[in-house]
Amino acid sequence: MSLRPTVDFLLNDWLHVESLNQRERFADHSRETFDAVLDTCERIAREKYAPFNRVVDTQEPHFDGEKVILPQATHDAQKAYAESGMLSAAQDYEVGGMQLPYTVEAAANAFFAMASVSIGSGMLTTGNANLLMAHGTDAQKRVFALNEFSGRFSGTMCLSEPQAGSSLSDVATRAVPDGPDFQSDPLGPRYRLKGNKMWISAGEHELTENIIHLVLAKIPDENGRLVPGTRGISLFIVPKKIVNPAGELTGERNDVALAGLNHKCGWRGTTNTLLNFGEGRFPVKGEAGAVGYLVGQAGKGLHCMFHMMNEARIGVGMAATMLGMAGYHASLDYAKNRPQGRPMGPAGKDPAQPPVRIIEHADVKRMLLAQKAYCEGALALELYCARLVDEQHTADATTADDARLLLEVLTPIAKSWPSEWCLEANSLAIQIHGGYGYTRDFPVEQYWRDNRLNMIHEGTHGIQAMDLLGRKVLMEGGKGLSLLAGRINDTIQRAIHIPEFAAHANALGQALAQVGAATKAAWATGEPTDALANAVPYLQAFGHTVLAWIWLDVALAAHAAAESPARAGRLAAMRFFFHYELPKIGAWLQVVSSRDQTCAALPEEAF
Amino acid sequence: MSLRPTVDFLLNDWLHVESLNQRERFADHSRETFDAVLDTCERIAREKYAPFNRVVDTQEPHFDGEKVILPQATHDAQKAYAESGMLSAAQDYEVGGMQLPYTVEAAANAFFAMASVSIGSGMLTTGNANLLMAHGTDAQKRVFALNEFSGRFSGTMCLSEPQAGSSLSDVATRAVPDGPDFQSDPLGPRYRLKGNKMWISAGEHELTENIIHLVLAKIPDENGRLVPGTRGISLFIVPKKIVNPAGELTGERNDVALAGLNHKCGWRGTTNTLLNFGEGRFPVKGEAGAVGYLVGQAGKGLHCMFHMMNEARIGVGMAATMLGMAGYHASLDYAKNRPQGRPMGPAGKDPAQPPVRIIEHADVKRMLLAQKAYCEGALALELYCARLVDEQHTADATTADDARLLLEVLTPIAKSWPSEWCLEANSLAIQIHGGYGYTRDFPVEQYWRDNRLNMIHEGTHGIQAMDLLGRKVLMEGGKGLSLLAGRINDTIQRAIHIPEFAAHANALGQALAQVGAATKAAWATGEPTDALANAVPYLQAFGHTVLAWIWLDVALAAHAAAESPARAGRLAAMRFFFHYELPKIGAWLQVVSSRDQTCAALPEEAF
Repeated sequence: MSLRPTVDFLLNDWLHVESLNQRERFADHSRETFDAVLDTCERIAREKYAPFNRVVDTQEPHFDGEKVILPQATHDAQKAYAESGMLSAAQDYEVGGMQLPYTVEAAANAFFAMASVSIGSGMLTTGNANLLMAHGTDAQKRVFALNEFSGRFSGTMCLSEPQAGSSLSDVATRAVPDGPDFQSDPLGPRYRLKGNKMWISAGEHELTENIIHLVLAKIPDENGRLVPGTRGISLFIVPKKIVNPAGELTGERNDVALAGLNHKCGWRGTTNTLLNFGEGRFPVKGEAGAVGYLVGQAGKGLHCMFHMMNEARIGVGMAATMLGMAGYHASLDYAKNRPQGRPMGPAGKDPAQPPVRIIEHADVKRMLLAQKAYCEGALALELYCARLVDEQHTADATTADDARLLLEVLTPIAKSWPSEWCLEANSLAIQIHGGYGYTRDFPVEQYWRDNRLNMIHEGTHGIQAMDLLGRKVLMEGGKGLSLLAGRINDTIQRAIHIPEFAAHANALGQALAQVGAATKAAWATGEPTDALANAVPYLQAFGHTVLAWIWLDVALAAHAAAESPARAGRLAAMRFFFHYELPKIGAWLQVVSSRDQTCAALPEEAF
Repeated sequence: MSLRPTVDFLLNDWLHVESLNQRERFADHSRETFDAVLDTCERIAREKYAPFNRVVDTQEPHFDGEKVILPQATHDAQKAYAESGMLSAAQDYEVGGMQLPYTVEAAANAFFAMASVSIGSGMLTTGNANLLMAHGTDAQKRVFALNEFSGRFSGTMCLSEPQAGSSLSDVATRAVPDGPDFQSDPLGPRYRLKGNKMWISAGEHELTENIIHLVLAKIPDENGRLVPGTRGISLFIVPKKIVNPAGELTGERNDVALAGLNHKCGWRGTTNTLLNFGEGRFPVKGEAGAVGYLVGQAGKGLHCMFHMMNEARIGVGMAATMLGMAGYHASLDYAKNRPQGRPMGPAGKDPAQPPVRIIEHADVKRMLLAQKAYCEGALALELYCARLVDEQHTADATTADDARLLLEVLTPIAKSWPSEWCLEANSLAIQIHGGYGYTRDFPVEQYWRDNRLNMIHEGTHGIQAMDLLGRKVLMEGGKGLSLLAGRINDTIQRAIHIPEFAAHANALGQALAQVGAATKAAWATGEPTDALANAVPYLQAFGHTVLAWIWLDVALAAHAAAESPARAGRLAAMRFFFHYELPKIGAWLQVVSSRDQTCAALPEEAF
């Protein structure tokens, strides 16, 4: 079974990605060039990633005192990925890119995430370099970003600290000017950084010549004090090894030391590190302090970083989606081949008959269709968001601004929804395997472990929920929410006249009204403590409503296609979502609308 | 933080377990003797189990070619457990037991499950020996059961085979009479067994002198054919090492060979094995075939085995519950100590203020209260079921029969509900820890991995759901369901006159009516394929309704107690369940009532 027909259907029949070729930036592209990219990525993922997914789980990264050792397969996979040109797929021709629409890039990357999510760290390198292309100086682009695009260097994002995870205002890494000439360094204003960064993915390895850390830190004021809050945060490029303005390694290490590898329950192919910046282990020019170059303006670091973080959030959503998809395909394959039990009813009464394959049992079909509805729905959502990125960058001004605002509202869903429901899909994949599912002889338990990190990666459910209900649905006078409601109503209008969709269109309209009413009710007192006490149930209901809309919209495209098993499957997945899933929103919204304080009001000693 | 106050409250203030002392069997017991048992178990669990929970995860059982190696801690823990007398706690004084009520035994065992679920395999040994006390001959009791109770031997249950997991009618292990004198063996009719058994927990180790396997197998007819279906199944005692009628090892191995250890994602402290019976690796008297002694009547093996399986199902429910509880306590402790972020509203606007502990955030409180509601509710359910076991064994005939029937209906819930919702609790415990939660430096990711097995152990959700909707709610003219409804209505009647409970009592009444209506609607056509297509959503809704009832009943006991933080916590957990959880049943029951065939009707090629 292949993912490709689903990707092709979503890109071509649903999102009409080929129509982007009418825009100047993508004018050289065609269905053929898109297909060629997908073909290449599908092949590399199949040959260099999938066969080694268990290897990277069992041969966890380890530190030999000098170097972090990763399996050879990881080196080979990253080399093949870099050679494919995917690191700079979306970049301009003039810097060696393909000027590929982000929608196609995201779809192509899905194959790697499905084959082995934790081998691939291309997302961070690309995101890092993209940030520098947007906010860096020409020299920073040339020396750092271009070498990341070529695969010579790799990139990280260093936000969290041991005492500051979700709360970036507590960042305590300090950056002080490096000598009187610090302003005149060709690579940007030069600082020395001291501090500790936690949860740094791909923070140390030997996969590339150098590692380019993008680090949040604070520049102390004249009294040596750090500005409290996020206003004081600046962004720095801190290479693992010192680089000269020609982009060559000088042979000197920067003062960045691995303080420890985090040992995780999943996603083990990627190192996850605690890094010490400037502790003096690798002094530069005889002095402790990691050399870092300011990116953009001092004090505006978080703004720049969000450029990368929003991409990373869609990336995490896609990773969660594809882990779910991998489990769906594995359990579908198992269900088609495993004989066990007999049919219900008279046909099953004769034990002398041979057992049937488990895909013939209704409950196994239920677990398969749930996975399909979760994972293919989530993939559609991620590609829809990717399409909005293309709109934001290449459409006319009004369309672009609408796309920007829609993305603001949808990003918390694109991040959180797959991390919850495609994890549930992985659990169903285990369940279909029975006892075999929890053994390490089958791949599904690893998908489930790998996926558990995604509800935490790049902002927990709690953070996404506060972002959605506390900021996104309110911003710009609620315009983002109105835009989304407009898109949903468009779909409803197209569906309501088709007899087999009318009931679903009505159900979606009611769900949208319920979400709207709950949003108002949550904020009725104007008190954040009232409104946000149940922000996560709100996020869950919002997410299910968005997915119901996505499915109805996808079903409209399927409906227009010729009869086929795939068409029947898409229509059934849509019906599953409306019958089994959408009705769940009532329970979630009830506590939001009543501003339920059962949890928030309970004193600590009562737990 | 200790589990003990919760256990004490449930046993004494809610279940009034002391009143059992009025029955002859328990006449020597008192609150003091019960407390002494709990004290001992709490201490052994704290000293011999909890400190080694990570050790048994990382030092997975391995086979050195001759023996299965387990950590020393496992040997020490099992020795301490056996010495406590807990293996025979419920047995008669005359065979060395304590005549302890099962309710107290179950509560005492909860401490071990919470401290390290996978060290403890006492459940299987006790269950095995209990089965023999009920169905074995005097010699079988003396030679096998009593040596299990003393801890000299341990026990297993061997049902599944590689090709027959949930479908026991496909058992293919054969048992043939062992020579012309096979009927006259002092240990019971002697057979030779050949076949493979899969998923056998504690199937091979060196913890005890001998391992007593209880094995399901079929006796071929005169033409050498096995009777199809479950009617042909018989039960055999197959010791790992041959034992003489005096209970001494003869020095000879039986023909039972370890074919492989299953490597699992969790619950690693207990070996999980594929065993080959009778392959000729250890011939007995020069002949291949594992020597086994028939238990009870030929062809009635499954009936005997269910004696053990129902206990095992409550045991699995309790294990799932206590894994959830362990995560709840760990994350509560973390939340009380981890500073991160600032309060919502004006108080949190000043970033110069130090961060608060995360238990002060509403969403963290929500995740904690959800865990409390799931895990303490599940514990109450398991102890309620244990109390029914005591009623069944020691109450007057009518009460005993009611208890038996109620247990039939509640067992699928006692098994399935904690395995789903206390796993969800474990996921919330990870979430509260943020990134630390998915590292192996904190215990919560292991609880979550360990708990994933419980939705499969002793019958999957699918099997439990078919048992509930396909058999239990129908049996004896629906009397079991009526009895349960009667108990629920009793609670409603007691609660409805208390103003703060009236709304909950009404909600529970409505939920009960919805479940009743859905049961009828599911079976309206009389077709199992219609009724059972959505058996799992039915199981989920039924379970949530049962838990709401349990919580309201527990809250009545809490309400009667003096004001205290613990009382406030119990009442809040009840409210949480009614506000956040019970409303979920609508979505589940909708597909049951409409006999939704979206999944069942989808052809295989459409997935």
